[in-house]
Amino acid sequence: MTKIKHVYTFGDKKAEGNASMKNLLGGKGANLAEMNLIGVPVPPGFTITTEACTEFNHVGRDKIIELLKDEVEAAVKYVEDIMGGKFGDVENPCLLSVRSGARASMPGMMDTVLNLGLNDEVVQSMIKKTNNPRFVWDSYRRFIMMYGDVVMGMKYMGHEEDPFEEVIDEIKEAKGIEHDSDLTTEDFQELVKRFKVLVRESTGRDFPTDPWEQLWGGIIAVFESWNNPRAEYYRMMHDIPADWGTAVNVQAMVYGNMGQTSGTGVAFTRDAATGEDIFNGEYLLDAQGEDVVAGTRTPRQITLEGSKRWAVLAKVSEEERKETYPSLEEVMPEIFEELMEYQQKLEDHYKDMQDLEFTIQEGKLWMLQTRNGKRTGLAMVKIAIDMLKDGGIDEKTALLRCEPNKLDELLHPVFDKNAIAGANVLAKGLPASPGASTGQIVFFADDAETWSQEGKDVLLVRVETSPEDLKGMNLAKGILTARGGMTSHAAVVARGMGKCCVAGAGALKISYKDRTVTIDGKTYKEGEWMSLNGTTGEVYEGKIKTIDPEVSGYFGEIMDLAEKHTRMRVRTNADTPKDATVARNFGAKGIGLCRTEHMFFEGDRIWAMREMILASDEAGRRKALEKLLPIQREDFEGVFEAMQGLPVTIRLLDPPLHEFVPHDDKSQKEMADKMGITPDEVKAAVDSLHEFNPMLGHRGCRLGITYPEITEMQARAIIEAALNLKKKGMKVLPEIMIPLIGTEQEFKLQEELVRETAEKVFIDYGDRVEYLVGTMIEIPRACLTAEDIAKSADFFSFGTNDLTQMAFGYSRDDSGKFLDVYVKSGVLKHDPFQILDQEGVGQLVEMGVHRGRTNKKDLKIGICGEHGGEPNSVEFCHRVGMDYVSCSPFRVPIARLAAAQAAIKDRLR
Amino acid sequence: MTKIKHVYTFGDKKAEGNASMKNLLGGKGANLAEMNLIGVPVPPGFTITTEACTEFNHVGRDKIIELLKDEVEAAVKYVEDIMGGKFGDVENPCLLSVRSGARASMPGMMDTVLNLGLNDEVVQSMIKKTNNPRFVWDSYRRFIMMYGDVVMGMKYMGHEEDPFEEVIDEIKEAKGIEHDSDLTTEDFQELVKRFKVLVRESTGRDFPTDPWEQLWGGIIAVFESWNNPRAEYYRMMHDIPADWGTAVNVQAMVYGNMGQTSGTGVAFTRDAATGEDIFNGEYLLDAQGEDVVAGTRTPRQITLEGSKRWAVLAKVSEEERKETYPSLEEVMPEIFEELMEYQQKLEDHYKDMQDLEFTIQEGKLWMLQTRNGKRTGLAMVKIAIDMLKDGGIDEKTALLRCEPNKLDELLHPVFDKNAIAGANVLAKGLPASPGASTGQIVFFADDAETWSQEGKDVLLVRVETSPEDLKGMNLAKGILTARGGMTSHAAVVARGMGKCCVAGAGALKISYKDRTVTIDGKTYKEGEWMSLNGTTGEVYEGKIKTIDPEVSGYFGEIMDLAEKHTRMRVRTNADTPKDATVARNFGAKGIGLCRTEHMFFEGDRIWAMREMILASDEAGRRKALEKLLPIQREDFEGVFEAMQGLPVTIRLLDPPLHEFVPHDDKSQKEMADKMGITPDEVKAAVDSLHEFNPMLGHRGCRLGITYPEITEMQARAIIEAALNLKKKGMKVLPEIMIPLIGTEQEFKLQEELVRETAEKVFIDYGDRVEYLVGTMIEIPRACLTAEDIAKSADFFSFGTNDLTQMAFGYSRDDSGKFLDVYVKSGVLKHDPFQILDQEGVGQLVEMGVHRGRTNKKDLKIGICGEHGGEPNSVEFCHRVGMDYVSCSPFRVPIARLAAAQAAIKDRLR
Repeated sequence: MTKIKHVYTFGDKKAEGNASMKNLLGGKGANLAEMNLIGVPVPPGFTITTEACTEFNHVGRDKIIELLKDEVEAAVKYVEDIMGGKFGDVENPCLLSVRSGARASMPGMMDTVLNLGLNDEVVQSMIKKTNNPRFVWDSYRRFIMMYGDVVMGMKYMGHEEDPFEEVIDEIKEAKGIEHDSDLTTEDFQELVKRFKVLVRESTGRDFPTDPWEQLWGGIIAVFESWNNPRAEYYRMMHDIPADWGTAVNVQAMVYGNMGQTSGTGVAFTRDAATGEDIFNGEYLLDAQGEDVVAGTRTPRQITLEGSKRWAVLAKVSEEERKETYPSLEEVMPEIFEELMEYQQKLEDHYKDMQDLEFTIQEGKLWMLQTRNGKRTGLAMVKIAIDMLKDGGIDEKTALLRCEPNKLDELLHPVFDKNAIAGANVLAKGLPASPGASTGQIVFFADDAETWSQEGKDVLLVRVETSPEDLKGMNLAKGILTARGGMTSHAAVVARGMGKCCVAGAGALKISYKDRTVTIDGKTYKEGEWMSLNGTTGEVYEGKIKTIDPEVSGYFGEIMDLAEKHTRMRVRTNADTPKDATVARNFGAKGIGLCRTEHMFFEGDRIWAMREMILASDEAGRRKALEKLLPIQREDFEGVFEAMQGLPVTIRLLDPPLHEFVPHDDKSQKEMADKMGITPDEVKAAVDSLHEFNPMLGHRGCRLGITYPEITEMQARAIIEAALNLKKKGMKVLPEIMIPLIGTEQEFKLQEELVRETAEKVFIDYGDRVEYLVGTMIEIPRACLTAEDIAKSADFFSFGTNDLTQMAFGYSRDDSGKFLDVYVKSGVLKHDPFQILDQEGVGQLVEMGVHRGRTNKKDLKIGICGEHGGEPNSVEFCHRVGMDYVSCSPFRVPIARLAAAQAAIKDRLR
Repeated sequence: MTKIKHVYTFGDKKAEGNASMKNLLGGKGANLAEMNLIGVPVPPGFTITTEACTEFNHVGRDKIIELLKDEVEAAVKYVEDIMGGKFGDVENPCLLSVRSGARASMPGMMDTVLNLGLNDEVVQSMIKKTNNPRFVWDSYRRFIMMYGDVVMGMKYMGHEEDPFEEVIDEIKEAKGIEHDSDLTTEDFQELVKRFKVLVRESTGRDFPTDPWEQLWGGIIAVFESWNNPRAEYYRMMHDIPADWGTAVNVQAMVYGNMGQTSGTGVAFTRDAATGEDIFNGEYLLDAQGEDVVAGTRTPRQITLEGSKRWAVLAKVSEEERKETYPSLEEVMPEIFEELMEYQQKLEDHYKDMQDLEFTIQEGKLWMLQTRNGKRTGLAMVKIAIDMLKDGGIDEKTALLRCEPNKLDELLHPVFDKNAIAGANVLAKGLPASPGASTGQIVFFADDAETWSQEGKDVLLVRVETSPEDLKGMNLAKGILTARGGMTSHAAVVARGMGKCCVAGAGALKISYKDRTVTIDGKTYKEGEWMSLNGTTGEVYEGKIKTIDPEVSGYFGEIMDLAEKHTRMRVRTNADTPKDATVARNFGAKGIGLCRTEHMFFEGDRIWAMREMILASDEAGRRKALEKLLPIQREDFEGVFEAMQGLPVTIRLLDPPLHEFVPHDDKSQKEMADKMGITPDEVKAAVDSLHEFNPMLGHRGCRLGITYPEITEMQARAIIEAALNLKKKGMKVLPEIMIPLIGTEQEFKLQEELVRETAEKVFIDYGDRVEYLVGTMIEIPRACLTAEDIAKSADFFSFGTNDLTQMAFGYSRDDSGKFLDVYVKSGVLKHDPFQILDQEGVGQLVEMGVHRGRTNKKDLKIGICGEHGGEPNSVEFCHRVGMDYVSCSPFRVPIARLAAAQAAIKDRLR
């Protein structure tokens, strides 16, 4: 039997592991090894494997120590040899750190212990060695705190506050000191004394003085932290299996706070904001890593160029800069040269922009970490294309480097960085539709119309919006609602318009009567300025300047690449020629969902629509439908024309009729006058349309079946529009979509009616046009019986909004009351209206696709729910074999990139 | 190659086919053959096989005639030989009939042609032969009408009315005659003349005079009728495959209208009303079959005993009876003896009560048809048990002979037959809960209470009912609503109470203000009498006497048999000790669904419930829940006690909280006073509970997860109640059921909370009790992820009401608007809320059962939706392997019988 190796050493440009061993060594351990192999100096150390962690979970503390003892001792020896000291030695001590490192990154989820090996004797020799008693005593008290918390469980002993912090506060209070940095060497000594007493009192045990006991304690604590509730929750949310386990990385300690020849810093190999190929970063002398980011001292720039640019922005004179904030390039030119060499080496090696951490200990540079750097959408696109052009990466890699959702940043206005700096956040709602906007608040859609026609920028503020507000919403700069979720009317419509929207900001108390909104006790009147960030959900007080970001050529290049590598096509959900044009410019390959109902709200149309609904018999309905026919036909002509020959899927009337009729006395009176009946009759007719659960009521094809004349009118309008454009020499591809199908028979009845109507129109026109008749698949039963429905359908389009509603039994209008709690408490990983629930709803979709194609191998299948623009869901759609996804115009580029990535990943699999 | 036989002859006590050949000869053809074989005289004839029909569908008219020609000609010869005449012969003609006859009975769906072979010459010899010109000319004109309609398609030629009837009307008008029976021989001759002209004008062809052309025309017409729209629709509704085809039965004509030695009649081998073993029936001399049922002449009784009994009821003296209405036994004693012999032979042979048709032609008795007779529920049960005791059938057959739904007749009051005779039907609604009731109408539940406490019988008439009406509903004799379907609140609650209910009677215009209901323009005031038939949905004017039917010992014997042969157990849905007791007496083996919410409406409880709901924080809720705890505990004790140790499944709070709070100003004010807050605050709290689609909103376990204290209180009440009864030495089996589970995590959270609470109670009491924690499976996603949910669940109970709502996307409260149209037009075969949709919803159920048992082989599974008492659905539940079904108390016997039948059919399979 071969003995299984549990410990892998690294250091001095040698390593037993490498970057490909992430499963065994964890991400961090594998990269530490790899850095050694490419000649980057890393504090030496070793990695205990994830397999050891799994073993620990089975056999427990004592057995695992027995198992690992020889290997760990040999590895410590290896570290000692490189560092020229000895762990726990009183003469020449070497201190260690212990850090976790799982296969997948789990930031902050598990534990770390630094400065292992310190005790009362070692402290003395450290002081001798460093000649820096304050640094040593500070390190010692930090070690006791960290070890006490992590290994000895002090935090979990019923204290409300961290008990160590309480002791520090006592001393600070006694001495009238405000900051930790004002504590003296003697204070730290006193703290160490008191901390030890505290540990004994709290745990009943003495703080361990044996370095080896300390080390094993730290290793076991990291193993145990794999199963802490925080980590368990994180794993659940990110689908990380519990049996992966974490590796443990033990390294020699290095210090940046040992005087003016020491320091620490962070750096990026390229500009994370713009993507420019400029090395940049910040550092501090005599400091630890946390000092750079803490903001208590002003960090200096690493490069001279960066330093000079910074001075201009910070209004610091060149003299002062040189004096007080010199660059590393100036202060330590040799170290700087070395750093430049490593950053280039690391970027070349990892072939991506790197985010580096380093420490300089008494004139020696140590690299502590390298990882792919976070960046803005703009930088993401530029870096990918630049690296592709440099030949560093290929096209597929360039595409995979871009995060689809980040493209969103390139498509909407943003706040001016300087203007937003000191802005006051009033409230936070859902980031319902991205972008930034600023304007004067109004509370009624009518006012939004009037005010904006007067040239004012307005924000429409409502408890919630309804289809009657459409025009006002379209003219407002942004929309803010107090109620409703990510798929509320306001959110859906705003995303469709590409307009900034913050929805469901619960803190808003709106008084329509007074035309005011009160937030946290402060009242804002109509006409006051506010600003919205639809990307974050933040609501600001006052006017904040916005800027339209430049969509550089890089964006277009990425889109071209996506086009080249995708299998699925991306269509758009658009109801108007304007939306259609926007989407086509973004690369949409057709309309996947044109909702006809929105067309009925504008201007006089609503009256004809209402007349149709309130008619008491078929004859009355037909009379009103005759008025609607030319209007619909014209609308369709506009949309067809905008799409220039690309396919256009038109959904027949879907919402319950109740949504169209007048509900207030005034409009009912007006309606009665127009129809020549009494207001009571109108009211009675409206009341008879009331439904307890309209979502599950008389809507979709149920309307078309009970009132076939509506389907007839719409089919006629579509076919006539197509023929009219054909006459003008244009190409048109209408796809007529029947909504809310649940049974084969429903579809057959409607499909036959559409085809009969089309034939009649063909005879009237003496000409024909190609068209398809298909259906929305949005009812669970339709997925279950898709085999039958497919028999007479030309295409399926999954309506995953409704499918999610019915599969979960969640009304999207009402689920806000519990969905937040569900997501926060981990009952659900995501809001299923935002990210398709692949585990449940996805099964129905897959079933629908599979069964639909049982009888019809080439059945065209797409998705037109909100999920069609969400990258995870797009990948799912690719995987189950859909032909296209359809999303709102402003998400088309995102979906295109996601679709290309899905195709690439699929081929890699 | 063997030549396939397409024609099977029968006659003169010989036959080529028999009763087992239904697939080939159709039901009618097989029975005609069988009757010959057992020595019953049947007009001779032959059957053309269903295979020939299928062949016809492929090859068409000409080929099929060519194929069948030789066999049909030989068969006609066979008939001629027996009848001693010749088809189409001018000297001694023999006439034929052509009738359809499919494998399954399809009454009235396909075509029949009588008197084939008549033409101008044959008429003359027929007159000579019968010496009855009026009879012959009448037959001739009937033949042209029938043949013209059926074979020549006159009805489908754009006439609104039957064109032949128009001609008859012309003649009748010209002669001032009212009835067809007043037409003379000459009139019939004239009709024949005019009919022939009409046929030529309408079809462009002469009426065929060649008997063989007539015969082939008839045969082909029957083949074609298999595919007429009527038959297609019937097949779709009854799952009859299109490729079965119909057989064609050709028989010699016999006539009961050839004078006083001829006659016709129908008879039953036992009493269809009571099941008594008494042969009975009616006949008429010189008459055709349709005259007996048409009611233009008073039919006479066949037996002397029956005749005498009839005379008493009809108040006819013995003299008049003997003179005018003598029995067949008296008039034709020999024929009567022969008939007695055949009826006994047929019942013995078919081993079931038979419904017979016969014709006497000039002193010779011909049996035309025998089939199993329709009967009342009472007769059904008695006949099955009688035949079992006689040894005619075995236990399984006796059970299969009973139609479960018919047991319903034995369980509810019915109208007195005499009293109902002349009653005036005002309206028709849905037969929501069976039985008959009569009472004075009231419009408010309060009044129902007061009036019935004053000893009055009342009917509660409402637009719809709500949980607040419960007490009034319980005290009323019956419930009538203007809105709502078979699963509306009124319907569900009434069925639970076993109370008569007619729901959704759309013709009712109720004015609560005036306390009146207007039906068809006539207004009824509070206090006026009405009567309801909940079995048919009829609403009658005035007071009609009702009687409680006797539940005889036969019923009990059938239930004992069912018990012996069933695999599944039957439980009941019951919320009160009273309902529980009723159900246990009906044989329920436990409670499958005890809804806790109904318990919150009575008396003062509602105030505590409302206080809980309207509380602004957890502390407030807990305070109110403390008041509810003892009430709930007491309720549970009552139910446990009533079930005497049988398992009781208690569902935790399910409906949206909105249903409990006060909606009108008055109650809101009262609530505010009780809570010490302002009415505006109450109103605001109530409004905040409003939901757009409450069915898909904040309810079920979503309440328990957002307000865990509710689950805690209910779990505590259940466990405490169980322990209290245990203390008294009683056995209790509580099963705690979490509603509306959609994800594994939801269930786990609630299950853990219940178990933690139970452990706390066990500590408090110093004693333990067995209990289970399981879940409703009523959300599509729960079926899809049942494998995971089952991990921690002790049982599944399918809530197929909600599952149907979500799988179809139908709100049961709103679907009335389109569901009627859907069922009538065949989009759906049944209302899926009444009969489980096995094709769609059934897939989800099967998936849930199968996946649930993947991880837990013995998972206990049942159903507690309304479908649990519907026989088809019960059979389905058996088939997918459920352990039990649960239904309302009054459907328990039905479910028990259906479950036994399912088990028997399963073993037969």
